[in-house]
Amino acid sequence: MSTSAGNSLRIALCQVRVDPDKRVALANAQHWVERAVQEGAKLVVLPECFNCPYDTSCFPKYAEPLPRPGTTAAPCDTSVSETAGVLQKLARAHGIYLVGGSVPERSPDDQRIYNTSLTFGPGGELLARHRKVHLFDVDVPGGIRFRESDVLSAGDSLTSFALRDGIDSEPNANAGLRVGVGICYDIRFPEMATAMAREPHNAKLLIYPGAFNMTTGPAHWELLIRARALDNQVFVGACSPARDLSATYTAYGHSMIASPWGEVIARTDERESLVVADIDLNRLEQVRNAIPVRKQRRPEVYNTAQKAAENTAT
Amino acid sequence: MSTSAGNSLRIALCQVRVDPDKRVALANAQHWVERAVQEGAKLVVLPECFNCPYDTSCFPKYAEPLPRPGTTAAPCDTSVSETAGVLQKLARAHGIYLVGGSVPERSPDDQRIYNTSLTFGPGGELLARHRKVHLFDVDVPGGIRFRESDVLSAGDSLTSFALRDGIDSEPNANAGLRVGVGICYDIRFPEMATAMAREPHNAKLLIYPGAFNMTTGPAHWELLIRARALDNQVFVGACSPARDLSATYTAYGHSMIASPWGEVIARTDERESLVVADIDLNRLEQVRNAIPVRKQRRPEVYNTAQKAAENTAT
Repeated sequence: MSTSAGNSLRIALCQVRVDPDKRVALANAQHWVERAVQEGAKLVVLPECFNCPYDTSCFPKYAEPLPRPGTTAAPCDTSVSETAGVLQKLARAHGIYLVGGSVPERSPDDQRIYNTSLTFGPGGELLARHRKVHLFDVDVPGGIRFRESDVLSAGDSLTSFALRDGIDSEPNANAGLRVGVGICYDIRFPEMATAMAREPHNAKLLIYPGAFNMTTGPAHWELLIRARALDNQVFVGACSPARDLSATYTAYGHSMIASPWGEVIARTDERESLVVADIDLNRLEQVRNAIPVRKQRRPEVYNTAQKAAENTAT
Repeated sequence: MSTSAGNSLRIALCQVRVDPDKRVALANAQHWVERAVQEGAKLVVLPECFNCPYDTSCFPKYAEPLPRPGTTAAPCDTSVSETAGVLQKLARAHGIYLVGGSVPERSPDDQRIYNTSLTFGPGGELLARHRKVHLFDVDVPGGIRFRESDVLSAGDSLTSFALRDGIDSEPNANAGLRVGVGICYDIRFPEMATAMAREPHNAKLLIYPGAFNMTTGPAHWELLIRARALDNQVFVGACSPARDLSATYTAYGHSMIASPWGEVIARTDERESLVVADIDLNRLEQVRNAIPVRKQRRPEVYNTAQKAAENTAT
């Protein structure tokens, strides 16, 4: 099956169920990653908190110390992080890029807890670590109330990684394609997506493991995914856990992939399932040529508070 | 009829048909503004190019010299600009805020032609003039090709105006409400909307007269309107001409108003019609308190190119 030939890359989002038993959750994630590989995916994504119930009381208990990029030439020590070990082994065994959703991390440096995403490359190398920058602190009356900041600390940088050449020994026109990573609530901040889509990152695919809920999910999930894609003329893939009505936090599901034209090119419902699409960089360039907003923006105008006075009487 | 009592302001978008005869177009606009007034609207909006076919060959022929804010304590001289005179008279006669869509303007200073929106206040005062900042130059193969820049020049500043107290002698909790104005293609640029929604503008309602077409309309019109509203937690009203299949450029129609929650609260189809909604500033504050993204943004993170290296191996 030729899946990354030409200018196209097959990606898959694994909308997995999160079992409260971490070992069961990891085994289930492995099962769905393997199904994604069978579908020909070369970049596979897991959801936010795929090894831990999304609940502030669980984060400290489930947190593991995680490796940091550049420090893991050797395989991850599974006695240190069971989860990192599983992800690394999966990426290497199947020669894929694996955006390992997110998991609670206990920093070995300061003992703080982060909501962290690790990405491994086809050789098992740790390519990227993203710590959620915007913590989910909301209070919608009659809807959802949640305060990640009760137990989590926030990351303080943007994260992207580049595909290398020669996935699966095929000529790969996507070599060098850069992928930006955010986590869930990060998607509400357009400036973050735009920073990832511009130099020096120049990401053309943004991945958001995320767990929206039954209030914000129906209202905003698709809108945010499509808006980030259209405004930045990039592909966006957002991967939720499957809906589990027995959990304290009910994930919306509806993982989906949007194109640079702002259309949803693949999606699922609330059930445990895969979302597969081919990321076509020719399509991305067509859109950018057709509606060249990236060249037409007027940054000199957006900060002209004083000039605005010329246009108004008051 | 109490329409602007409490913390609510009734607005109306007039999705009018644009007759190629300017006098007919102006009379028709007047008719629909008067219908909006009958519906209790205190802020009324006309579409882009409501007095001129949307066609680059027409812009120079239809262009008028327009007044500039601060220079029109006296009524507009209709021998100079027939259109400004009609708009001013309408605003004063009905005591409304009238965002006069947009019209081709020939600058008395440099003879350049702009796509310009004039806003008049309840006393007939000229409150704001917006010259379209982003010219519509696109080429979608098999879809739409248009080059405003063949004949138009671009504006170079943001535009907003404030409501004053005591519309219609009612107590008006919207006194001081600031309204931002963009024109059509301007809506594709999230940074412009965000600049209007932040200090020093602090607009809580963004108005876009706009004429999307049958390619970009179905694909992007609603998505852009809802995204600007949700991302900035503001109301957005976008007013199109009615669809006219005999015109060289076919407007999409579908004028609509979106809330700070990103939902469409009023809309129409492609026919000549009104879109009316009450802008509830209490609702706006509820949304901002529930999901406080305006306070949670991390501007220090978005420009950390060098920090990104910490998170990636390559």
